[in-house]
Amino acid sequence: MNAVIQNRLALLREEMKQAGVDYYMIPTADYHNSEYVDEYFKAREYFSGFTGSNGTLVVGKDMAGLWTDGRYFIQAARELEGTGITLFRMQEEGVPEIPDFLYGQMEKGQTLGFDGRTVSCKEGRKLEKKLAEKGIGIAYGEDLAEKIWKERPEKPCRSITVLPEEVSGKSTAEKLEEVRRKIKEAGAEYLLLSKLDDLMWLLNIRGNDVECNPVALSYGFLTQEEIYFFAQKAAVTEEFEKYAQENGIIWKDYDGIEDFLERYDYQGKVFLDERNSNYALFKVIGQRTGHVDGDNPTEWMKAVKNETELSRMEEVYRKDSAAVIKFIYWLKKNIGKTEITELSAAKYLDDLRRNTEGFLDLSFPTISAYKDSAAMMHYEATEEHHKTLAPEGMLLVDSGGQYMGGTTDVTRTIVLGAVEDEMKKHFTLVAIGMLQLTEAKFLYGCTGRNLDILARQPLWSHGIDYKCGTGHGIGYMLNVHEGPQNIRWRFTDSMKEAVIEPGMVVSNEPGVYIEDRYGIRTENILVVRKDQKNGDGQFLRFDTLTFVPIDKEAIDTAYMQPADVERLNRYHAQVYEKTQEYLTEEEREWLAGATAPVQMQH
Amino acid sequence: MNAVIQNRLALLREEMKQAGVDYYMIPTADYHNSEYVDEYFKAREYFSGFTGSNGTLVVGKDMAGLWTDGRYFIQAARELEGTGITLFRMQEEGVPEIPDFLYGQMEKGQTLGFDGRTVSCKEGRKLEKKLAEKGIGIAYGEDLAEKIWKERPEKPCRSITVLPEEVSGKSTAEKLEEVRRKIKEAGAEYLLLSKLDDLMWLLNIRGNDVECNPVALSYGFLTQEEIYFFAQKAAVTEEFEKYAQENGIIWKDYDGIEDFLERYDYQGKVFLDERNSNYALFKVIGQRTGHVDGDNPTEWMKAVKNETELSRMEEVYRKDSAAVIKFIYWLKKNIGKTEITELSAAKYLDDLRRNTEGFLDLSFPTISAYKDSAAMMHYEATEEHHKTLAPEGMLLVDSGGQYMGGTTDVTRTIVLGAVEDEMKKHFTLVAIGMLQLTEAKFLYGCTGRNLDILARQPLWSHGIDYKCGTGHGIGYMLNVHEGPQNIRWRFTDSMKEAVIEPGMVVSNEPGVYIEDRYGIRTENILVVRKDQKNGDGQFLRFDTLTFVPIDKEAIDTAYMQPADVERLNRYHAQVYEKTQEYLTEEEREWLAGATAPVQMQH
Repeated sequence: MNAVIQNRLALLREEMKQAGVDYYMIPTADYHNSEYVDEYFKAREYFSGFTGSNGTLVVGKDMAGLWTDGRYFIQAARELEGTGITLFRMQEEGVPEIPDFLYGQMEKGQTLGFDGRTVSCKEGRKLEKKLAEKGIGIAYGEDLAEKIWKERPEKPCRSITVLPEEVSGKSTAEKLEEVRRKIKEAGAEYLLLSKLDDLMWLLNIRGNDVECNPVALSYGFLTQEEIYFFAQKAAVTEEFEKYAQENGIIWKDYDGIEDFLERYDYQGKVFLDERNSNYALFKVIGQRTGHVDGDNPTEWMKAVKNETELSRMEEVYRKDSAAVIKFIYWLKKNIGKTEITELSAAKYLDDLRRNTEGFLDLSFPTISAYKDSAAMMHYEATEEHHKTLAPEGMLLVDSGGQYMGGTTDVTRTIVLGAVEDEMKKHFTLVAIGMLQLTEAKFLYGCTGRNLDILARQPLWSHGIDYKCGTGHGIGYMLNVHEGPQNIRWRFTDSMKEAVIEPGMVVSNEPGVYIEDRYGIRTENILVVRKDQKNGDGQFLRFDTLTFVPIDKEAIDTAYMQPADVERLNRYHAQVYEKTQEYLTEEEREWLAGATAPVQMQH
Repeated sequence: MNAVIQNRLALLREEMKQAGVDYYMIPTADYHNSEYVDEYFKAREYFSGFTGSNGTLVVGKDMAGLWTDGRYFIQAARELEGTGITLFRMQEEGVPEIPDFLYGQMEKGQTLGFDGRTVSCKEGRKLEKKLAEKGIGIAYGEDLAEKIWKERPEKPCRSITVLPEEVSGKSTAEKLEEVRRKIKEAGAEYLLLSKLDDLMWLLNIRGNDVECNPVALSYGFLTQEEIYFFAQKAAVTEEFEKYAQENGIIWKDYDGIEDFLERYDYQGKVFLDERNSNYALFKVIGQRTGHVDGDNPTEWMKAVKNETELSRMEEVYRKDSAAVIKFIYWLKKNIGKTEITELSAAKYLDDLRRNTEGFLDLSFPTISAYKDSAAMMHYEATEEHHKTLAPEGMLLVDSGGQYMGGTTDVTRTIVLGAVEDEMKKHFTLVAIGMLQLTEAKFLYGCTGRNLDILARQPLWSHGIDYKCGTGHGIGYMLNVHEGPQNIRWRFTDSMKEAVIEPGMVVSNEPGVYIEDRYGIRTENILVVRKDQKNGDGQFLRFDTLTFVPIDKEAIDTAYMQPADVERLNRYHAQVYEKTQEYLTEEEREWLAGATAPVQMQH
């Protein structure tokens, strides 16, 4: 029995009774739909004991259930043991979604409670609609955890920094003007911005309140004349105050947003992205004035990088690539000689980045996955569960950094010793697809749906698929995952299919994942550039930002066409050229070999 | 001055006055949105003198205008000379669409007239909505041409034939049951079927009332118990009567459909495809009961061919391919020796098809386009305007037949003599793309948007595009163009993007079109088949139906990878194997050379 959790649930049920709530729901989210959440927002973990990154706890008088996805079924089952919480395996046959489950369990006149700031407008409305059919109400105004969780950490609150225009490439004034125009065009007067990276981009500032994402907890409210910025007092520095004054940014306290929206004298509708705004604020706006739903115009504008951003990224990527090259060199030299584990390897790489000029943070926790661990796309080695590396098989390392001047993301699968022929075959097919997409030339108007097959076809030809997209957008000193562009062959309803624009930055990361055996992924980052324009239209191409060798020890040219070999050799020649200045003599020598041209077999 | 046309327009304006109509619109359409229209339906041509296949005439008291598309700008300008009719070049900048034009010209209280049977429900509603904003009415009940056009031909009316189940592969009873279920699922009780090929498919019958389309002028009205079939009396044969009786098909007169729909005792809504049902019938149903809009379920069912259809098609395609091979052989042997024109070449090929077992009709008028004529995708050689062939350059021939057992469509571009290196380059890139798409293996769930780039990429790599889709669906003894599947990289709003299903038949026809110089297109027809199924999903592949050599005289292996050469050689080996039994000794010998393996240059 897990008395700690059972006790916490008992206290929660007490509070529910007092609040007149029959079921209480705790998702894993901050108030901004961020990809990672800080300790303060981990109420779901506090009440369930489940530590995974995705899950929703539902507590009733006589039941408690936790919904999580396939990545966490095993871990959740272990962590929920003795808590009395039922595990609901999402997307398994016969497992209801939360709105349907609640609809079935709850009775007319009952009330569902949740903290409306932790639920997106979209999800909140879905629940509201479903439960209203049965006469079930919703109470979204209270965070019941607040009264029970005594040792709850403070909300993260780190200093806001200002990006000078030589780093941002575009002034806040220009950005504001463009956004205001788009809001007007959409039929709205105001914009409520809850998505943190969009707001950082718009105001040319950065924070450090979300793990690996250089963003500050904040909201923005844009009118046609003013810009209100809601942030925690302690995060506001003198530098920011001065900058705010110069730019007409009116600072208000973070916790005052609801009150502000309650009292504002609206003269029109508020533009509000239902996916990325929380339910509590949506309700205020709904009661006070109307809203216009749509994608934040900032999302698209942020995705198209300007030339300042791109030239800084190029430099950052060369240095970051050099750090990864140093890591591979070290790994190959030391494997079998000193003890290296998945964790110590990751730490070695992280330290190399930390010593790189301009480093600020990792852009996500480094994935270091050996052998069969790599078959799990989101594997995380821990102190308790990790492997020791041996001079055989392959190590998959997916990592990246936040730098002054760019956010990086790169994956290499590294040969540590003997590898089977089948691994080589799969490794080679992945490289062929990755390079085929890299060298694509395509007409303006294409989306990721048109292009995905260029990376995937070599694998499909052999009856192999990877169960994820080929590429995602990447921020500039911001989130490592950003939209709206995606390279994938299928889109769910909640995904957007955006036209690929010059200046967008995307990842290119096909892979092969063989359960219980191994995983291969090779990931480069590409920037979209204009190519020739003629009577047939504007052609686009990709330029590569990432310059790290693709392990030739796992390349089998028997699966390659001459054009594939040429692509690989062309890429490797660039790798050497772009990174050698950052390497030691020894590393350079090794790299010369690692990037020497491959010869076609005859 | 064109007194004939001006006189006709004067008479029309008289009738408009009598009918209380201020503007009158005449599109180019029968009552069923068919791709081709019979002479009876060419009122637009009668009143304007413009003979193109697409155009809409709008006549007011003091103006007349003709809207047509880019294919016909030159021809229309010539044919409209002296008629007083203004040419509106569709999609050119500043040229209004018809609803906007009428909105601008007409005044409150005025009336627009048209024959509601010749306008689709979708277009009619669009006009209605736009004009209602300004208080303009619509009168759709009269065909004013009827009173003026004395020498108007009779409606086409040819005998209906019945397809035995060994040809259709699926009984009408089975089809009806499935369609009834789908109609119910869509929330309707009845189905109004106006699309002729859908109706022919459903009832396992064929007609001959639309050029190249083996369909009978008819409507269907399906209830959950009955099927009413509205056709012209003279088209109804004894054979059909017997068949109708056996299958519970209730025959009614073609012209009685409106009256029937007026009087029917509805117990629910009518399913009606707004794109393919005419406005007049839609209005009746709208006044009597509601309708449910959607794609005809028959469209999708018809597109997925059954095994009987597929095995008959395979045989038909082999014979049809042999006819094209005979043609190419004859052309190559005789060019420069006897006079051959675009027209006489087409006639020779048409005659070869006519002499092929099972031949019923052409599936579309043969396109025979020499040199720069081929740069126009829809070129039509006429008695007045056609070229004489010489032993140089290339002839593009796009043709097909209707046979007992299948509809064919094939394009080859044939070398007649010396061709420039650039032509060879383009010809080779087209062949590479065509064969790359042919040999694609892909997961179930793909649409034509995912696959298109496999055919297009070799051209895009060289900065060349073709301004059309790569492939369309093809009927079984029905229309040569059918939906819902399409292989293209972009879809307009009016196009559907359907998942590619096993049993679907699609064309694969990339091309290069260089204005004023030449055109290249290579078109094979493919059938979608299941390939392996594993943990990653159901893989699909294409099997080829068309077996005609790709002219090696225009192949330049310098642009090919070994895999491209292997694909070409594999295809050519099949061509010989599948067609040789239908050829003479001489033709066989020639074919052996034309399909002998190509060697890679070193």
